[in-house]
Amino acid sequence: MKTSIATVSTSGELPEKLEAIARAGFDGVEVFENDFLAFDGSPADVGRMVRDHGLEITLFQPFRDFEGMPEPLRSRTFDRAERKFDVMQQLATELILVCSNVSSAALGGIDRAAADFHELGERAAKRGLKVGYEALAWGKHINDHRDAWEIVRRADHPNVGLILDSFHTLSRKVDINSIRSIPKEKLFMVQLADAPLIDMDLLYWSRHFRNMPGEGDLPVAAFAAAVADTGYDGYFSLEIFNDQFRGGSTRSIATDGHRSLIYLADQVRRARAVPDLSIQPMPPRAIVNGIAFVEFSADEEEAADLVRMLETLGFQKEAVHRSKDVSLYRQGDIRLIINTDRHGFAGSSFAIHGTSAYALALVVDDATNALERAVALDAEPFCQPVVPGEVEIPAIRGVGGGVIYLIDDKSNLGRFSEIDFLPVEDETEVVSAHLLHIDHVAQTVAYDEMPTWLLFYTAIFEAQKTPMVDIIDPAGVVRSQVVENASGLLRITLNGAENRRTLAGHFMAETFGSGVQHLAFHTDDIFATAASLRQNGFKPLAISPNYYDDLEARFGLDTQLSDRLKAENILYDRDEHGEYFQLYSPTFGEGFFFEIVQRRGYAGYGAANAIFRIAAQKKHLRPDGMPKA
Amino acid sequence: MKTSIATVSTSGELPEKLEAIARAGFDGVEVFENDFLAFDGSPADVGRMVRDHGLEITLFQPFRDFEGMPEPLRSRTFDRAERKFDVMQQLATELILVCSNVSSAALGGIDRAAADFHELGERAAKRGLKVGYEALAWGKHINDHRDAWEIVRRADHPNVGLILDSFHTLSRKVDINSIRSIPKEKLFMVQLADAPLIDMDLLYWSRHFRNMPGEGDLPVAAFAAAVADTGYDGYFSLEIFNDQFRGGSTRSIATDGHRSLIYLADQVRRARAVPDLSIQPMPPRAIVNGIAFVEFSADEEEAADLVRMLETLGFQKEAVHRSKDVSLYRQGDIRLIINTDRHGFAGSSFAIHGTSAYALALVVDDATNALERAVALDAEPFCQPVVPGEVEIPAIRGVGGGVIYLIDDKSNLGRFSEIDFLPVEDETEVVSAHLLHIDHVAQTVAYDEMPTWLLFYTAIFEAQKTPMVDIIDPAGVVRSQVVENASGLLRITLNGAENRRTLAGHFMAETFGSGVQHLAFHTDDIFATAASLRQNGFKPLAISPNYYDDLEARFGLDTQLSDRLKAENILYDRDEHGEYFQLYSPTFGEGFFFEIVQRRGYAGYGAANAIFRIAAQKKHLRPDGMPKA
Repeated sequence: MKTSIATVSTSGELPEKLEAIARAGFDGVEVFENDFLAFDGSPADVGRMVRDHGLEITLFQPFRDFEGMPEPLRSRTFDRAERKFDVMQQLATELILVCSNVSSAALGGIDRAAADFHELGERAAKRGLKVGYEALAWGKHINDHRDAWEIVRRADHPNVGLILDSFHTLSRKVDINSIRSIPKEKLFMVQLADAPLIDMDLLYWSRHFRNMPGEGDLPVAAFAAAVADTGYDGYFSLEIFNDQFRGGSTRSIATDGHRSLIYLADQVRRARAVPDLSIQPMPPRAIVNGIAFVEFSADEEEAADLVRMLETLGFQKEAVHRSKDVSLYRQGDIRLIINTDRHGFAGSSFAIHGTSAYALALVVDDATNALERAVALDAEPFCQPVVPGEVEIPAIRGVGGGVIYLIDDKSNLGRFSEIDFLPVEDETEVVSAHLLHIDHVAQTVAYDEMPTWLLFYTAIFEAQKTPMVDIIDPAGVVRSQVVENASGLLRITLNGAENRRTLAGHFMAETFGSGVQHLAFHTDDIFATAASLRQNGFKPLAISPNYYDDLEARFGLDTQLSDRLKAENILYDRDEHGEYFQLYSPTFGEGFFFEIVQRRGYAGYGAANAIFRIAAQKKHLRPDGMPKA
Repeated sequence: MKTSIATVSTSGELPEKLEAIARAGFDGVEVFENDFLAFDGSPADVGRMVRDHGLEITLFQPFRDFEGMPEPLRSRTFDRAERKFDVMQQLATELILVCSNVSSAALGGIDRAAADFHELGERAAKRGLKVGYEALAWGKHINDHRDAWEIVRRADHPNVGLILDSFHTLSRKVDINSIRSIPKEKLFMVQLADAPLIDMDLLYWSRHFRNMPGEGDLPVAAFAAAVADTGYDGYFSLEIFNDQFRGGSTRSIATDGHRSLIYLADQVRRARAVPDLSIQPMPPRAIVNGIAFVEFSADEEEAADLVRMLETLGFQKEAVHRSKDVSLYRQGDIRLIINTDRHGFAGSSFAIHGTSAYALALVVDDATNALERAVALDAEPFCQPVVPGEVEIPAIRGVGGGVIYLIDDKSNLGRFSEIDFLPVEDETEVVSAHLLHIDHVAQTVAYDEMPTWLLFYTAIFEAQKTPMVDIIDPAGVVRSQVVENASGLLRITLNGAENRRTLAGHFMAETFGSGVQHLAFHTDDIFATAASLRQNGFKPLAISPNYYDDLEARFGLDTQLSDRLKAENILYDRDEHGEYFQLYSPTFGEGFFFEIVQRRGYAGYGAANAIFRIAAQKKHLRPDGMPKA
């Protein structure tokens, strides 16, 4: 599959855009006219600059309000086209995108439009150029690719073809099967964009909400598979308008875009009965069967505080590393590693982020395959020199520059911990809190980066994303979206912070985006856990009593249960599948914390309780109740 | 008119919200349940805290999913209501808001709903409480206030009444005349919210886009006038959900809200035939007949640079102040004052913002009235000690803490400049550039603050706001909206910057929000002006040649005209009313600049050209073409 992206999709000035697009691995680029007009070089200079980056100009766009015009507008429109043909010849590109007419002057009538395109095709042919026609979802007469195709068919000119755009087709819910009957040689270009499912005016939706395939909710992979079924072997090109992207990092938008196309190609390859030789095969999405361990980097002083908190949570030291200042704490299937080594990656992570959970180890079905897939999807492999005899674990870089280790039965934790670690006897008097495994990991990122990481996780790992929910912090909205798999063994909640005054934003700013803001442990008996925690001297986050009065009214809880929840500061939620209990630790450092949850069939994450948890935490951070500066 | 606001409308924690609401001048507050639940004090504490701020609790809300439930849900819902009645008695508030049922379990049927409300009324009456029913625009069965009113009518209970919300009524385009037939004693509360006109899912629109009356596009004043016609003399209460507000400054949201209600009351008073004694009269919106002068604060070094630029623009020094280091430059009706006095307000403005256009003098129909109205609308009056004999001009604080002087025929500029200034003879050799008056003033603010200033200008001055347009900067979107009056003598373009990498955002960050980023002067002959400027040694901002090739194609300009535009670096636009020509100066300091425009009937501001202007300016700021960090 050949990949392309429109220059309008990224932020930055033209040279910056082209560099980022080339570096991300695209084969071609659509030159968006305004980017070119604002640039201070001739068309020939721009063409040369594009090719110097190893890119092909896949098309020049947009040419607006062309077909079906009455005279004298019609003649003027053809003159205008000739001027653009001049530019294209200087740019040295052969295809122009004509989008369906939105002018109130447009007359309509497909034969009239076909005749206009035939004439335009004649004029283009004289110069060796080609014309592609695209139906805008809000075109005045033509807003459906089936109508645009009928016009192209009747124009009956070898230099006139159809351009498809997934947004325009899918936003109008046009049957994608209609694509399968279009001859591939008449498909001059296929543009792709996704969008979140929000019912709104199509033009506003398109201009402000488009995103990369896989970042939204539209069936873009099914659309691309229908295109592939025609035998089309041209470019798939991203055309994304999005306010967030316009203000984002040029380079990461380009990287996300390339990743989205590679992932899409893989989905298309798997969806089709016939092997598609134009698409490079890669291993399937990795199945995650749990979190083997979480590793913290810390200095010795903060490590001691962290260990004290872990002890109140019922953790005990199980082993120490043979060659490094690294300890392994354990309870049930939960393994937490504390790394105070000043050398290596943990040390440099500490230098940037301070004490933080900088590495997650995921148990996958096949670690080698998972790494291969991740790298194919533009993830950065992570390698750390190992001391001879130590196990090297396949790994990639994740959120906040942290590390995701990939572990399987072949390179399993047993072997890893036997080889690298020496067992120790922890003599601290600690009562087990019945914590069984990690329920979920919560990562905080800048709101702008949420699509990046949702795409990252769902492209590499077999997992789905849940719909976005708004978490109300007194200082602003935090958006939350979850990546989870069917088994529930991978659950990552991603929280997007827009300003640094929210609890999430404060954590992000103060830790320079370390990523993991909280770990949630699972128990089968929240009250037994609470009793053990009390014995260990754990002080739970204190929740407002008003919360419990409402809980009783809201869920019709019996007084005995609500009194018990209140006494233990346990939050409660219920959905159609069952009940949920949540208990929080105080915050540690700049806003890191632990959570303990019990699920009785419940599928969510207690989003409705977040406002009460945040209010309690904010009080905890500053005893005077005033917001932090 | 009694004013109230729901706690959910502002950012912050409950104590912070209440303080800001009281300080802004509201009479009452709706306690939004989550704000109360998250707070760590008893209901009685909260009630006391509200009253200690001099505020009344106007209602407690929301009570959801009440009417039309099947058993056993129905009984549970009544139990839940009783628990909320307990809370209300402790809070010491009498009214609860019940919003129409959105539960899939709700059965519908207005008689069933009426019977439920009758019973709830009976229960409320026993405790001296009242129930208000509000139709949500997305209610399952009831989504129109006319249906909610029919239920209240049939419930036929003195403790059950109707609550209206302008958003729910206007978003569904329900005829507001239907309000005029509701007896005022059955209207228990009237909530107000506005919203920009974007066609989208009602719930999404409501949750994310609501804003203060006058900040959006809904006919909220007509809605409130219909309410007033019933004889309703209760609270008008703001209920605004808006992501931007949630992250904004608690205090300025409360101030904007209060201003919006005062302005609304004035509109209602004027709209009604019968004098409304509950509304304090104020002078009408001030009519602006021009900009008398713009005053810059600068230090001597930068003032010299500024003067050099003004001279190339054809300005000459006309007078100097009698007692301060202040000079007046003039061309046509344009007066620019340069104040290098280190004392007084100009000096302190310079200390904060650096060289900037910190004061605008507006010529109004009646300066005393304008000041009175502005102060009634919560504007901050500005007073500066004057030397005996000098004219004190009425003034208020505006964008960026700058000053807006209000001048009329009684306190006119002639008198002001005669008394305070001494004429001088400028011997610099300068050719007039035929600049006649100030066409518009462009102010840059943080995107969050745009609604604040749009409301400020349109509430105080007779002016309208235009729809928002997106200006594409390579580093992000800048939103632009114009405040203008019918005569065209007041034209202020407001640009909202979301990040500091855009040209507007850079200016805002580096000048600490000084406000005025550019001044546009009007000429009747752009080519004559360009010729004069050249004689004065003026170097216009250089525009990309590609722009002119497109212009010729786009507008079908003859080659002679487009060559002339290109030679002079003049930008061109056309709308249905006529033509527009724009010529820019280089930027000064951190991004301030001058523009010269000629309008031949054209009504806009050349938004389509902004991308080319910004690209050229960014290059000018950094010769290597790289974006500023």
